Amino acid sequence: MTLASPALATARADFPGMVTRDGAPWHYLDTGATAQKPQAVIDATVRAMGADYATVHRGVYARSAEMTLAYEAARRRVASFIGGREDEVVFTRGATEAINLVAQTWGQANLKNGDRVLLSLLEHHSNIVPWQLLAARTGVAIDVCPLTADGRIDLDAAERILTPAHKLVSFAHVSNVLGAVLDVPRAAALARGVGARLLLDGCQAVPRLPVDVAALDCDFYVFSSHKLYGPTGIGALWARADILADMPPWQGGGAMIDRVSFAGTTFAPPPARFEAGTPAIIEAIGLAAAIDYVEGLGMAALHAHEVTLAATLRTELQRLNAVTVFGPEDGVGVVSFALDGIHPHDLGTILDEENVAIRAGHHCAQPLMEHLGVPATARASFGLYNDESDIAALLRGIERTRRIFG
Amino acid sequence: MTLASPALATARADFPGMVTRDGAPWHYLDTGATAQKPQAVIDATVRAMGADYATVHRGVYARSAEMTLAYEAARRRVASFIGGREDEVVFTRGATEAINLVAQTWGQANLKNGDRVLLSLLEHHSNIVPWQLLAARTGVAIDVCPLTADGRIDLDAAERILTPAHKLVSFAHVSNVLGAVLDVPRAAALARGVGARLLLDGCQAVPRLPVDVAALDCDFYVFSSHKLYGPTGIGALWARADILADMPPWQGGGAMIDRVSFAGTTFAPPPARFEAGTPAIIEAIGLAAAIDYVEGLGMAALHAHEVTLAATLRTELQRLNAVTVFGPEDGVGVVSFALDGIHPHDLGTILDEENVAIRAGHHCAQPLMEHLGVPATARASFGLYNDESDIAALLRGIERTRRIFG
Repeated sequence: MTLASPALATARADFPGMVTRDGAPWHYLDTGATAQKPQAVIDATVRAMGADYATVHRGVYARSAEMTLAYEAARRRVASFIGGREDEVVFTRGATEAINLVAQTWGQANLKNGDRVLLSLLEHHSNIVPWQLLAARTGVAIDVCPLTADGRIDLDAAERILTPAHKLVSFAHVSNVLGAVLDVPRAAALARGVGARLLLDGCQAVPRLPVDVAALDCDFYVFSSHKLYGPTGIGALWARADILADMPPWQGGGAMIDRVSFAGTTFAPPPARFEAGTPAIIEAIGLAAAIDYVEGLGMAALHAHEVTLAATLRTELQRLNAVTVFGPEDGVGVVSFALDGIHPHDLGTILDEENVAIRAGHHCAQPLMEHLGVPATARASFGLYNDESDIAALLRGIERTRRIFG
Repeated sequence: MTLASPALATARADFPGMVTRDGAPWHYLDTGATAQKPQAVIDATVRAMGADYATVHRGVYARSAEMTLAYEAARRRVASFIGGREDEVVFTRGATEAINLVAQTWGQANLKNGDRVLLSLLEHHSNIVPWQLLAARTGVAIDVCPLTADGRIDLDAAERILTPAHKLVSFAHVSNVLGAVLDVPRAAALARGVGARLLLDGCQAVPRLPVDVAALDCDFYVFSSHKLYGPTGIGALWARADILADMPPWQGGGAMIDRVSFAGTTFAPPPARFEAGTPAIIEAIGLAAAIDYVEGLGMAALHAHEVTLAATLRTELQRLNAVTVFGPEDGVGVVSFALDGIHPHDLGTILDEENVAIRAGHHCAQPLMEHLGVPATARASFGLYNDESDIAALLRGIERTRRIFG
């Protein structure tokens, strides 16, 4: 086992969260839930909360003007990171809010009884429930694309399912349970073929793949900062400018208006139209610092690293007896598995004693769990700070757990 | 001029933002827009982003369990701060989102064509536009309560306006432009009298007054963390448990569900039902630290301080010629004024050269500006770190501005 990129060999030291309380290495394998933060992001946050702090878009004094520039620079940073235009980037609380925003504005305005939405069996609850809530209000029907035997979204099946009644296809770019990477060009072509819009849930993709929304040919792209080594409380919706321009407002308040009167209010153009109230100023600055950090290491290096770590763990797990490893062989950064006769929670609890943190549960993907025929899986998910020592610690912990349950 | 409380005499040193880049005192008088952050909040944020960082509600490892405890402790901290129960506190992005949440769940479910909502002429756009959006969807009518001559919400007028068709009264607890404090007991009695719910926008109140929602007898109370010396990206909705229990979900996703299946999804009880997705974990910890900080100084002391500073500034301004001071004599923490012949933006720009930061504009209250007959006002708003030196600097700056404009 060797690291994919020498650039990443020392990255772990940038993350103050990657040690235990007593200073031992923490084998954190739950980056799929949330990523640790590099010191550069913490430092940017401290500056933004202290010497640089002021509101945005409003002050007539210099510090507020500077903070406004920094906030809008963060928007440009997000746009350039994913290959979009800055006026196409809306800051949200996270990917969940971004999908709800699309459902409650674009969906509410454009979808009607008789229309259909295509999701997949491996979607995170955040890409299921907003559409169910929309369906309850509008009568839109939801179809569910099945998976291939190895756990990818089955695009052959999608091709058979899709009809001109489908107005939206909404898929995970990378599965948060299986690590499966969507064949986006084909998914985009299928959606285009029936005139449907394509939304990609990029939560697990942006930390692990170079993303270019123009090349992907999607209509909506969403992600959360906290999974990209940035602060909690912020994320982004990218949407094609022409689509965003026609979307009605969702939340009303300061900053999203043009002019307010009790006789009638007019709204600002996007992206401001969708950012009511004082925004997550400090968090936007922190997210920009996180993007600077990962781009400094290189997204191609991060991708190679995540592919190598996942492949290595899969191989090691498959050498053991009585282990089921879920998902395709070429998944990125995320590996779900089950040990015969040992509940994932028990495994997770014993691993914790060894300073190994995995997730055990349904991973906010209950329909997928049902499909896999398990109530839960154990999931190891990698970040840029992980290396072979984390895999070795996990494997030692699995051995110990089996001895205990022996 | 003397400070109201000796406890506050040294508080300014706790705020790293209260100096200019070259280390001079910054006369920050824009706390009504957003408050500076004490070092204790920054330190709590750094710990939460570093050594303590993990996700909440999901991990089987100890650090995630500890972060979950800290997140829920933050909710209890908010509840005890405003006199509510912890299961009545929903974390939102801020007050704006909180009002939109009420409008789009409680409002959408309970208000119908023919029903009426009573707002006032001094409301912030965030307490106007969400109701206009609801009105456009449901046909609900909005009435506007006028102001008294000195700039309070005219509750005599409210009494004449209110009818059993009114299902909601939604007022600012403290005006963000005039500093006027609502007579809440009377407003609550008037609302109760016609069977209407009472929502209070507490943004400007929670940093300046002891607040007890039980004593106030309101139904909904909202505020933003960033105006309470806490992080951006978080705020709270408090709602009476019986009301919250009947409110349908708003945003769908992880954490707000009970069980998800494509056949039908069931939802968690409040407050989880209204917190879809990974929450603003770090920000909740920071908000709790901010509450610890202000309660350590004492809300009664903060209140006396804000009353004294506002009264002092009003008196000093009224001594000058050709100055209009808006709002009631007993306003708290916020003073709006206009200099004859000098646009507030010009005043703000010149004051900035003197390291004095005020706000000049419509303060997200365009209907109030129209009522006052001005396009904008100059506004000085105080925080716990301000003292007589800030008022003196403002007055010097006003003198200089007048000399410049001759």
